[in-house]
Amino acid sequence: MINKVKKDEAVVLVDENFNKYFLNTGGKTDKYKGVGVINPADLVGIEYGKQTKIKDKEFWIFKPSSMDKLQGLKRKAQIILPRDAAHIITNCSIESGHTVLESGIGSGSLTIALANAVAPTGKVISYDNREDFIKHALKNLKTMGLDGFVKTENRDVTKGIKEKDLDAIIIDIPNPWDAVSHAWKALKVGGYLCTYSPLISQVEKTVDEIKKHGFIEVKTYENIQREMVVSKHGTRPSFNMLGHTGYLTFARKVLK
Amino acid sequence: MINKVKKDEAVVLVDENFNKYFLNTGGKTDKYKGVGVINPADLVGIEYGKQTKIKDKEFWIFKPSSMDKLQGLKRKAQIILPRDAAHIITNCSIESGHTVLESGIGSGSLTIALANAVAPTGKVISYDNREDFIKHALKNLKTMGLDGFVKTENRDVTKGIKEKDLDAIIIDIPNPWDAVSHAWKALKVGGYLCTYSPLISQVEKTVDEIKKHGFIEVKTYENIQREMVVSKHGTRPSFNMLGHTGYLTFARKVLK
Amino acid sequence: MINKVKKDEAVVLVDENFNKYFLNTGGKTDKYKGVGVINPADLVGIEYGKQTKIKDKEFWIFKPSSMDKLQGLKRKAQIILPRDAAHIITNCSIESGHTVLESGIGSGSLTIALANAVAPTGKVISYDNREDFIKHALKNLKTMGLDGFVKTENRDVTKGIKEKDLDAIIIDIPNPWDAVSHAWKALKVGGYLCTYSPLISQVEKTVDEIKKHGFIEVKTYENIQREMVVSKHGTRPSFNMLGHTGYLTFARKVLK
Amino acid sequence: MINKVKKDEAVVLVDENFNKYFLNTGGKTDKYKGVGVINPADLVGIEYGKQTKIKDKEFWIFKPSSMDKLQGLKRKAQIILPRDAAHIITNCSIESGHTVLESGIGSGSLTIALANAVAPTGKVISYDNREDFIKHALKNLKTMGLDGFVKTENRDVTKGIKEKDLDAIIIDIPNPWDAVSHAWKALKVGGYLCTYSPLISQVEKTVDEIKKHGFIEVKTYENIQREMVVSKHGTRPSFNMLGHTGYLTFARKVLK
Repeated sequence: MINKVKKDEAVVLVDENFNKYFLNTGGKTDKYKGVGVINPADLVGIEYGKQTKIKDKEFWIFKPSSMDKLQGLKRKAQIILPRDAAHIITNCSIESGHTVLESGIGSGSLTIALANAVAPTGKVISYDNREDFIKHALKNLKTMGLDGFVKTENRDVTKGIKEKDLDAIIIDIPNPWDAVSHAWKALKVGGYLCTYSPLISQVEKTVDEIKKHGFIEVKTYENIQREMVVSKHGTRPSFNMLGHTGYLTFARKVLK
Repeated sequence: MINKVKKDEAVVLVDENFNKYFLNTGGKTDKYKGVGVINPADLVGIEYGKQTKIKDKEFWIFKPSSMDKLQGLKRKAQIILPRDAAHIITNCSIESGHTVLESGIGSGSLTIALANAVAPTGKVISYDNREDFIKHALKNLKTMGLDGFVKTENRDVTKGIKEKDLDAIIIDIPNPWDAVSHAWKALKVGGYLCTYSPLISQVEKTVDEIKKHGFIEVKTYENIQREMVVSKHGTRPSFNMLGHTGYLTFARKVLK
Repeated sequence: MINKVKKDEAVVLVDENFNKYFLNTGGKTDKYKGVGVINPADLVGIEYGKQTKIKDKEFWIFKPSSMDKLQGLKRKAQIILPRDAAHIITNCSIESGHTVLESGIGSGSLTIALANAVAPTGKVISYDNREDFIKHALKNLKTMGLDGFVKTENRDVTKGIKEKDLDAIIIDIPNPWDAVSHAWKALKVGGYLCTYSPLISQVEKTVDEIKKHGFIEVKTYENIQREMVVSKHGTRPSFNMLGHTGYLTFARKVLK
Repeated sequence: MINKVKKDEAVVLVDENFNKYFLNTGGKTDKYKGVGVINPADLVGIEYGKQTKIKDKEFWIFKPSSMDKLQGLKRKAQIILPRDAAHIITNCSIESGHTVLESGIGSGSLTIALANAVAPTGKVISYDNREDFIKHALKNLKTMGLDGFVKTENRDVTKGIKEKDLDAIIIDIPNPWDAVSHAWKALKVGGYLCTYSPLISQVEKTVDEIKKHGFIEVKTYENIQREMVVSKHGTRPSFNMLGHTGYLTFARKVLK
């Protein structure tokens, strides 16, 4: 069975360096960054997954995967990397159908991962006190076709959370400790809180506040990812390595 | 709103050391490991999330979360830990509705994580050439209420894969390279292959085979997780640390 | 040229698991832990480096190396491991002829490493406020033949340092910040201070104090050592790993 | 006691970013890289360790420490970093008075560390099959005042080692396995071999050869160094991190 690109489809173009470009084949002729001026309709009929020359450059075309969406993100603020997003989703037990809250939205990187995880029946609520971040993130989410799973609010999470019975809350702000009491009230029994902080002092203040409230299963982790370079000469860890992303603290709401 | 345990519910009991015990309140009076002899019906009416004394020991009762299910697993073979399962699901773009294949099933740890991720509409197909592992894993999956999302097969994945158009294939056998050509045929265009191996020599042979077939986006990672001990005295990495789990190699199917 | 064990020599016996036992061939018949009751004089004439049966067990006999001395240490308090001692000696520029101060002495593990480094013409001054630690460490140092390079003092380093113009000072006490002003006065211009602490909060208080005094080249490191298991099956990092030893902070004295 | 720079002294100038520049106050007026055109005699009388303006830039002047020498090295080939040099010296039990051989010399970084460790009575023998590397390294060693402790040879270590009874041999060439049999013959009984290799395949071939010869205490390590950034905002691991240097394999010669 051969699958070909049809009209009005969201597609991702992947170049030889595995950079990713999102298009909709129903879009208009325009300059697409990294691809050039093209009429997206010209892609119709190309075989999915077959490397094809488009405007002097070779591309594979795919229906976008979750990972394509995470990797195709345009950055404005610093992002939560897929490695940490993966850990958040697993340790917060986030799954299809869940309602989860995150704050802030940043560039929408974690938002994409969360939307992928709760779809098709769940919801991501995303607070940010900066309207420009929300706008930028929503643009990313629309490109990825995930905006339908996300409700944004221009709000400061340290001022309170309106929602109740949330399955999980993920806090990525400089002062997560100020959101802990609100999270306690907004989580369902058995729900998970996660805070993401680069500094130990942030972790300490947050864990202190978390313990005061009576959360259980309180754990803090750091994930270190090493890429291995495998070539015909042999194998070694990559010389390039990100030394640190952030500490992830997890906690679970109970009844007192 | 107070939530109380009802009849015929799957519940998890969590003790003060956060050990987890799975029960169904419709079950019969029996000896439950870690809890003692109890009639599960006696749990009916207890408030979810409220620490309660049951047979001389304090427990919280929850509706089981995905993480509870991963942590409540009874081990037979060595397991893929939640940290690596998280990475596999994210990097293989596994989401609700997908059909994914894993081999072998082992104790069913990755199976649980995959079932959580593809539910409620997807499917996990799990090959293992050892019937005793399948039986043990299925018992775990039933306890977790996830057996409905999993189809097991007593088959050797290096002999071939019957299924077609799979979204992802995860191989955790000593000789993953022998499954690569079968995976190539069984994956959908744009689908992901992941192999999990503790040894560098396994990685090298597998990556070599993967590259021969023309997979793209071939990457090998090692995830190192450090737990941070946060106490009133201060914070430090835990002295206890697992030095290694396995190397994860990811690759994506294209058309040639 | 064949080298044989002579009378009145310090030797180390190494068993098949590479455990190390120190003896002097001028010693008397006694029960030697791990070897049994032997008359050390019976070792005279055995070839150095040739595996030989002694009391039903196979041993190699060597003239003790620095590493033998570090590994043969009998522990009382927690020790500074050779990996961190190596880093301390290099980053504090410790070399033959130097006069260095450490506090506390603990079991004498760092003391042995320092004595090896400053010998044959330098000196290690070691303060500890616990007489029992000093006694235990001195016993270790005598066994290793290094007591001649070490001068111990039953003193609290936070009460002051008598010596002047020290080449380096290494502080391994719970409150290193209380020793910083004394170290500042006791170091030679261009000399190095090192503090070893397991907790981040200790590092922060110490670095704060160090910066107040005007030290330069202030750096904090953590050394993570992974052992690789190389066998005929292939290579992987060891599953056994010490997750943390301590943070090492280095600083250099200048004139203000 | 005030120490001032005198005539005909080797000094190191340290700028505010802790870059290091080596001069001899007996040298002639010249352009000194990083300092500018100066007459080194003008430095005479400046206080050691006191920050002083020299040619519009602030410098501290010190009598060079071992670490200054390691950090002041001018690179030509890739170097062995101080963290690994420290580990080599400690695990090979290298100390004042020893005779050790290294190959190749590269830029002389390990040579400097070894010379520091064996001085003032020991010797480093350094083989390299590239005359240009030897010349470059010797220039570095002269700058550091360490050339007196080093004897260089334009030789290929895989063709044989002339010396006997060496205390330690350190091999940093692409094919260390080809030097193992020569090292076995050239080491004293109880002496240490160390090989440094970035690739796992190199480690495997070398360990295989090492085991065939009967070396004992065979261990392979990887040292990972993380710098901690300590500021008034808090503490975190540095984002900048070198992902890999090389694997260090250690082994000890015995009699067969």
